[in-house]
Amino acid sequence: MAEAFRALWDTLLPIGADPDGGWTRPAWSEVDLAARAWFTREATARGLAVETDRNGNLFAWLGDPEAGDAVVTGSHLDSVPNGGAYDGALGVVCALLAVDLLAARGVAPRRPVAVAVFAAEEGARFGVPCLGSGLLTGAVAPDRARALTDADGVSLAEAMRAAGTDPDAIGPDPARLARIGHFVELHVEQGRALADVGAPVGVGSGIWPHGRWRISVTGAGDHAGTAAMAGRRDPMLTAAYAVLAANKEARQRGGRATVGRLLAHPGATNAVAAGVSLWLDARAADPETLAAMVAAVEVRVGERAGRDGTSVSMRPESQTPPVTFDPALRRRLVAATGGAPVLATAAGHDAGVLAAHVPTGMLFVRNPSGVSHAPGEAATDADCAAGVAALAGVLRELAC
Amino acid sequence: MAEAFRALWDTLLPIGADPDGGWTRPAWSEVDLAARAWFTREATARGLAVETDRNGNLFAWLGDPEAGDAVVTGSHLDSVPNGGAYDGALGVVCALLAVDLLAARGVAPRRPVAVAVFAAEEGARFGVPCLGSGLLTGAVAPDRARALTDADGVSLAEAMRAAGTDPDAIGPDPARLARIGHFVELHVEQGRALADVGAPVGVGSGIWPHGRWRISVTGAGDHAGTAAMAGRRDPMLTAAYAVLAANKEARQRGGRATVGRLLAHPGATNAVAAGVSLWLDARAADPETLAAMVAAVEVRVGERAGRDGTSVSMRPESQTPPVTFDPALRRRLVAATGGAPVLATAAGHDAGVLAAHVPTGMLFVRNPSGVSHAPGEAATDADCAAGVAALAGVLRELAC
Repeated sequence: MAEAFRALWDTLLPIGADPDGGWTRPAWSEVDLAARAWFTREATARGLAVETDRNGNLFAWLGDPEAGDAVVTGSHLDSVPNGGAYDGALGVVCALLAVDLLAARGVAPRRPVAVAVFAAEEGARFGVPCLGSGLLTGAVAPDRARALTDADGVSLAEAMRAAGTDPDAIGPDPARLARIGHFVELHVEQGRALADVGAPVGVGSGIWPHGRWRISVTGAGDHAGTAAMAGRRDPMLTAAYAVLAANKEARQRGGRATVGRLLAHPGATNAVAAGVSLWLDARAADPETLAAMVAAVEVRVGERAGRDGTSVSMRPESQTPPVTFDPALRRRLVAATGGAPVLATAAGHDAGVLAAHVPTGMLFVRNPSGVSHAPGEAATDADCAAGVAALAGVLRELAC
Repeated sequence: MAEAFRALWDTLLPIGADPDGGWTRPAWSEVDLAARAWFTREATARGLAVETDRNGNLFAWLGDPEAGDAVVTGSHLDSVPNGGAYDGALGVVCALLAVDLLAARGVAPRRPVAVAVFAAEEGARFGVPCLGSGLLTGAVAPDRARALTDADGVSLAEAMRAAGTDPDAIGPDPARLARIGHFVELHVEQGRALADVGAPVGVGSGIWPHGRWRISVTGAGDHAGTAAMAGRRDPMLTAAYAVLAANKEARQRGGRATVGRLLAHPGATNAVAAGVSLWLDARAADPETLAAMVAAVEVRVGERAGRDGTSVSMRPESQTPPVTFDPALRRRLVAATGGAPVLATAAGHDAGVLAAHVPTGMLFVRNPSGVSHAPGEAATDADCAAGVAALAGVLRELAC
């Protein structure tokens, strides 16, 4: 299976590969479309019937979609800029190979089985993650989604239209959602928990609550040479303080806080910035800790803005409550994997969105580097093959 | 004269005007070319002979350029992103109007007079300021200049070629430089010193030493949710600390330090950055204070990088020694302005570059807002007219 994994994996790898390592497949970009076309080719070659739902999610069906109580597995193909190869893509490739494995073993599922590719899972391009699954389930409002823009000012509606998908049609799709009896997402682990216990595969217990807040600091643009220090209202100072304050609050509270994106306007070397926008990604084990952490950052940044003569606003762009995966399905996943360790994740997933509507579970494949959203993300072919075997076992149990 | 100023000024204002206020005329951009074409039209309409030197600087001649001992005045037309209307442009417009004033008064200069537009004065686009005057005088090496790139990766050579100017021809031009007997640059003041003493016009004494340093912080890209705080090597933390440390060092030493440009890579909301580049603009009244300030920032940032697990490099992109304008010319400027106040500036100017080769002076026009490199930069038409009168008086004295 490791050889079969590598063979299929190698056909996807060139799509969106960056010249200097890493992969960039922004949601609804040309590269994303190439990855989706790759999926359609591979699924069709396996005799699966590929349909695109009104939100741009792809479903490749084995059996009759209308029969109901379907077993769906899959993940996403879009990526963060210069991310790793495995995030999302591994769940799609393993799902296709699990279908192959069932076929090779002569298993004829009683229930329909589908491999899903959810659209725009990464929030990297449009600021809000899990758009495809969020629109399908109604977690994301279509008007809000259409108006989201990327760093170049391109809206989701424009990007979808350019990709040949009608943005006016997006929105909740309860009939399609009702077809799904179980959803299982396989994903590369985004930490070193499995590596630390020496297990190739793990089972997800749930997802930490998390969210993104946009911090907008407004000051007064000026000349970097001639503006006296005392008279400045420099938003970069407030922004820099926010970066450090968020880090400190997260460490003190056992949560996680990150500023990975910061935009200064106008962004000239010899000008005091007029404004700075930065994005706080914050997560914690429970909602109370998360809320307290974000509130503490807001208070501290507000105080600093007062000293800097700047004004600051902080508003959530997305907030995701904690997720606990279906306990019965979790037990079946543990059994099907021969007792794989159970772990929580601090990363959002389409599985987290679907969990509110459908019995949902996750499988994780060991990542020896522990790195995620960066080129160093890793998994051995043997571990990926173990993921395929575990997934195939789960599909067999659920679908037969 | 205030009316004449406004009439000419209004013909330039639309070029590069931003929809929401401010002006953006990046060096060698389409907008910059439009401003240069505007200059050529206006100069030609006045009977001046316009030539472009090998470095893209424009000279509009009254009299024979080859006669030598010319009196040259002017400034630049490019701008920072979303800057003010007056920086650079005021010196060009006032120079044209000063020539008009001489003609209206029937003054026939004995020596040649030229109005100059120096190319790429603002370092905003290519990172190094005063490229046109710096290449002309040999202060900037042509190979280095050609290889400079803007934020989109476009090199100066490519931008010049796209503008129809041969980048292979750039470099020192001692013969052309030797034509210039005196250079006087009129500029909007970039602080409130003239407003504070109630004077419409001032005379420059010199320019603070200043420079730009690129601080490159390298960390380890990772997932914002799943990477444990303790294991991170987050370059954004080191960068944020650098912003605050530079500000503190400048305040303590009476200098100026600014970070107006900061780029995070990959710049995704949900990813710990892999690297951050930021640019430190630093200035002080004397070279010793400047060097000590920059060295202190480097030490502090290096210490912080050690705590963050990041690596940091800091290298100068441009360094400009202090300039003292020609004392004899300064006295003549003070006399011609009826005793205008004398002030130093912390901003670089083409006058600062030329001062090493030619007797050079500066006139400043009052800026009631004190703001520079931002839309709030201001000057009244009456003060600009006073600037024209002062400049015409100086030209008459020097050229006749």
